[in-house]
Amino acid sequence: MAVGLSEPDDILPVAGIKLASVAAGIKKSGSNDLVVFLFDEDATCAATFTQNAFCAAPVTLAKKHLSLRQSSQLHPRALLINSGNANAGTGDRGLKNAEQSCRWLAEALHISTEQVLPFSTGVIGEQLPMSVMQSGILDIATNLDEDNWLSAATGIMTTDTIAKAVSKTIALDGQKITISGIAKGSGMICPNMATMLAFIATDADIEADFLQRCLSTVVEDSFNAITVDGDTSTNDACVIVATAAAKNKQLDTSSPEAEMFAQTLNEVCQQLAQAIVRDAEGATKFVTVEVTQADSIDEAKNVAYTISHSPLVKTALFASDPNWGRILAAVGRAGIEQLDISGVNIYLDDVRIVKRGGVDEDYTEEKGQNVMNQEEILIKVELGRGEHSAQIWTSDLSHEYVRINSEYRS
Amino acid sequence: MAVGLSEPDDILPVAGIKLASVAAGIKKSGSNDLVVFLFDEDATCAATFTQNAFCAAPVTLAKKHLSLRQSSQLHPRALLINSGNANAGTGDRGLKNAEQSCRWLAEALHISTEQVLPFSTGVIGEQLPMSVMQSGILDIATNLDEDNWLSAATGIMTTDTIAKAVSKTIALDGQKITISGIAKGSGMICPNMATMLAFIATDADIEADFLQRCLSTVVEDSFNAITVDGDTSTNDACVIVATAAAKNKQLDTSSPEAEMFAQTLNEVCQQLAQAIVRDAEGATKFVTVEVTQADSIDEAKNVAYTISHSPLVKTALFASDPNWGRILAAVGRAGIEQLDISGVNIYLDDVRIVKRGGVDEDYTEEKGQNVMNQEEILIKVELGRGEHSAQIWTSDLSHEYVRINSEYRS
Repeated sequence: MAVGLSEPDDILPVAGIKLASVAAGIKKSGSNDLVVFLFDEDATCAATFTQNAFCAAPVTLAKKHLSLRQSSQLHPRALLINSGNANAGTGDRGLKNAEQSCRWLAEALHISTEQVLPFSTGVIGEQLPMSVMQSGILDIATNLDEDNWLSAATGIMTTDTIAKAVSKTIALDGQKITISGIAKGSGMICPNMATMLAFIATDADIEADFLQRCLSTVVEDSFNAITVDGDTSTNDACVIVATAAAKNKQLDTSSPEAEMFAQTLNEVCQQLAQAIVRDAEGATKFVTVEVTQADSIDEAKNVAYTISHSPLVKTALFASDPNWGRILAAVGRAGIEQLDISGVNIYLDDVRIVKRGGVDEDYTEEKGQNVMNQEEILIKVELGRGEHSAQIWTSDLSHEYVRINSEYRS
Repeated sequence: MAVGLSEPDDILPVAGIKLASVAAGIKKSGSNDLVVFLFDEDATCAATFTQNAFCAAPVTLAKKHLSLRQSSQLHPRALLINSGNANAGTGDRGLKNAEQSCRWLAEALHISTEQVLPFSTGVIGEQLPMSVMQSGILDIATNLDEDNWLSAATGIMTTDTIAKAVSKTIALDGQKITISGIAKGSGMICPNMATMLAFIATDADIEADFLQRCLSTVVEDSFNAITVDGDTSTNDACVIVATAAAKNKQLDTSSPEAEMFAQTLNEVCQQLAQAIVRDAEGATKFVTVEVTQADSIDEAKNVAYTISHSPLVKTALFASDPNWGRILAAVGRAGIEQLDISGVNIYLDDVRIVKRGGVDEDYTEEKGQNVMNQEEILIKVELGRGEHSAQIWTSDLSHEYVRINSEYRS
C-alpha cells in the first residue's frame, strides 16, 4: 500500500559501522526481529527520544547509557534493536530485561554493558521473551558485516510494508563522506521531539555537541513534522553515529561546511520521515499540509496538525472527495485566538477553494476532484495573520487502517 | 447501529410550544428536512453556540437575533431548522439566504424577521436551495401543532440512524412542569461550549438570566462532554425555551427549587448527549472515559479527550481487544507536566490493568477480554496528582465509520 515508495536498492555502507539482522523468534511471523549496529571506538553518537511520559524501558536505559558519555569514558559502541515487542508498560521487570539484553550483547562483543543502547518496537505491555533474546543476541554477534543495511532496515519493521532507507554522499574537507539511515514506523506515529525508530550513520568526523545540535534541529523539520494517527509512541528514538573513519578535519559549528552537512542530514531525515508516512498503515494518499501567514510557528503547526488529525478530513482524502468544508471546519476549530476568517485562503494544490473565508467564485467541483484524484496532495492554508509557516506530512484514513489496527494483536 | 438506544415513544408536549416538520426537498432522500418551533409571547429563550471560528451563516444570524432581546422588545418567537445543508462556508450569500428564510417564516407567522432563530445542519459549502426553502416554509407554517415532537426529532437528523428525544416532569411551586428536548448529531461531534443541534423546551416560567446560566452550566457536563471524532462542527447550537405556560411563580437563582430544576435539566441534556454518542457514526461501543485525581479539571479533561480521540484506542475498542498499552500511551502523550507514572492506575470497568504505572500482577488477558466484549465500557484513569476529575462519553472507530464518511456526499 506504500504511496510512491519502492524497496531501497542503493544503501551505501558506512566505514566504521558493522551491522546484522536475524530472526530470533520474537515475531510470530518468523521475520527478522533483531538488529545490531557495532561502531568503531572513535565514533560519536547523538540521539533524540520520545516525550511520552510512559516511555519504554529501553528508552529509559538508552538515555541513561548515553548520559555516561560525559561523566565517564563509556562512549556508546553498539545499538541493540528488537522488533515485535515494545518492552513498554512492563515496569521494573521490563527494565531488568532490557539491561540483561545489553549485558549479553556486551559480553559477546567484549565491550561494557553501558556501551550498548537498547531500542524496542512492537506490542506494548508484554515482557520480552528472554531465552529467545539470549540465543538471538549470541547468534547475531557473529554475523556483523558492513553490507547488512537492507537486512537491518527489514529487521526493525513491524506493520511496515516496505523497508525504509536513504543514502547520500557529500565532500567534507576534500573527503567523500557517506550518510546512510534507516527508519521504521507506520502506526502510532506523531513523534514529539523524536521519531518512531531511525538510525543514521556517517563516516564523517564530527564534534559531539555539534552532532547533537544538528540532529535535534533537523528532527524538528522531519520526524517531528509527520503524523499518521496523532498517537505519539512510547518508544520513539532517532540516533546518529559519526564514525570518523573518513578522517576529515573534525566538523564543528565553526566549520565552513557545517551548514552543508546539516542541510544534507536534513534531506536524509526528511526523506526517511516521508517514507514512514508513505507507508502509513492503510495509506492510499501522501498529503502535505502547509500553513502559512501564521502569527507564530506554533500557531502554524497547530492548524496543520488539527487538519492532519481530523478523521473527517482523512476519510474525505481516502474517498478522493473534495469535501473542503471539512478542512475549513478543522481550521476553524484549531483554537486560534481571534481568527479573522476573511483573511483565510485554502488551496488544494494550485486550486484556490476558499478565498477570504468563503468559496472562491472560480472554484468548481471538477477542479477540486482533479486534485483529490491524485496520490499526492498539497493542502495549503493561508491564515493572513503573520509571516510564520509550518509543513506537516500525513496520510489518509482508510478501511485498511481500521482493519490493521483492529487485528494487530490477533 | 445505535448502542443501547431505541426509538423515543414518550415525548411529552410542552404547553406554549407548537411545532411541525415537513419534507421540503433539501435532502436527496426525501426525508423530513425542515422543522419549525413556534412559542408563545411570554416565552424566554437561552442558547449556546459553536466556538468554531468558521461558524455557519445561521449561527451568526441566530446570535444576532438573540442579542436583540436586551436592546429591543424583539423576543425570539420561532426556531427555523433545516437539515441536509449546513449553510456554512457560504459567505455573504449564505448569510442573505439565512435572512431571507427567516423573513419568509416571519411573514407566514405574523412576527418580525428578528424573532426567528435559524439553524442548519448537513453538507458544508453549498448554498441553500432557496425555492425549495420558500415552498417548504409556507407549507410548514400551516401545520404547527403541540404534538409533533417525534416528527421534529426526525426532521433534524442527518447521518443519525435514530431520533433522539427525552422528556421529564417535575413539580415547581406546586405546578407540574414538563421539560422535553430533541437532539441530532452522529459525526463531526466534539462540541465546544455547545452541541450539534439540541432544542429543549419547558412550560415553566423562568427568569431569563437564570435560564441562560443554567443552560451554560449543564451544557459543560453534557453536550460539551461528548466526542465522536474530535471535529467541532461549524453549526453546533443548543437552545432552551421556557414558555411560562405552567404559570408557576417565576423561577430564578434565589428560588428554593432552582437547584432541582438545574439538576433535571442536566439529566435531560446528559441523556440527549449520550444518545448522540450511542448513535455515533459506525458506533459499536458506548464508552465512558473517567479521569480522576487530576491537578485540575482541564488536566482531567485533556487526558480524557486524548484517550477518546486516539484512533488506536478507538480501533482496539472496535475489535473488543484489551490492548491497554494504547490507553497507557495516550495518557503518556497527553502532555501532563511532570507526570509521575508510578502514581497512575488504569481500569477497564472494575478490572485494574495498570497499577502504579506497570501491569497489575493480578491482571489477566481473560479479565480484560470479558470487559471489552461488552457493548458499554468504562475506561477509568487515576492520575494520583490531585482531586479533580472529568468524564467524557465517546464511541469506537469502525469500518462503518470510514464507510459513512468516505461516502457521505456521494
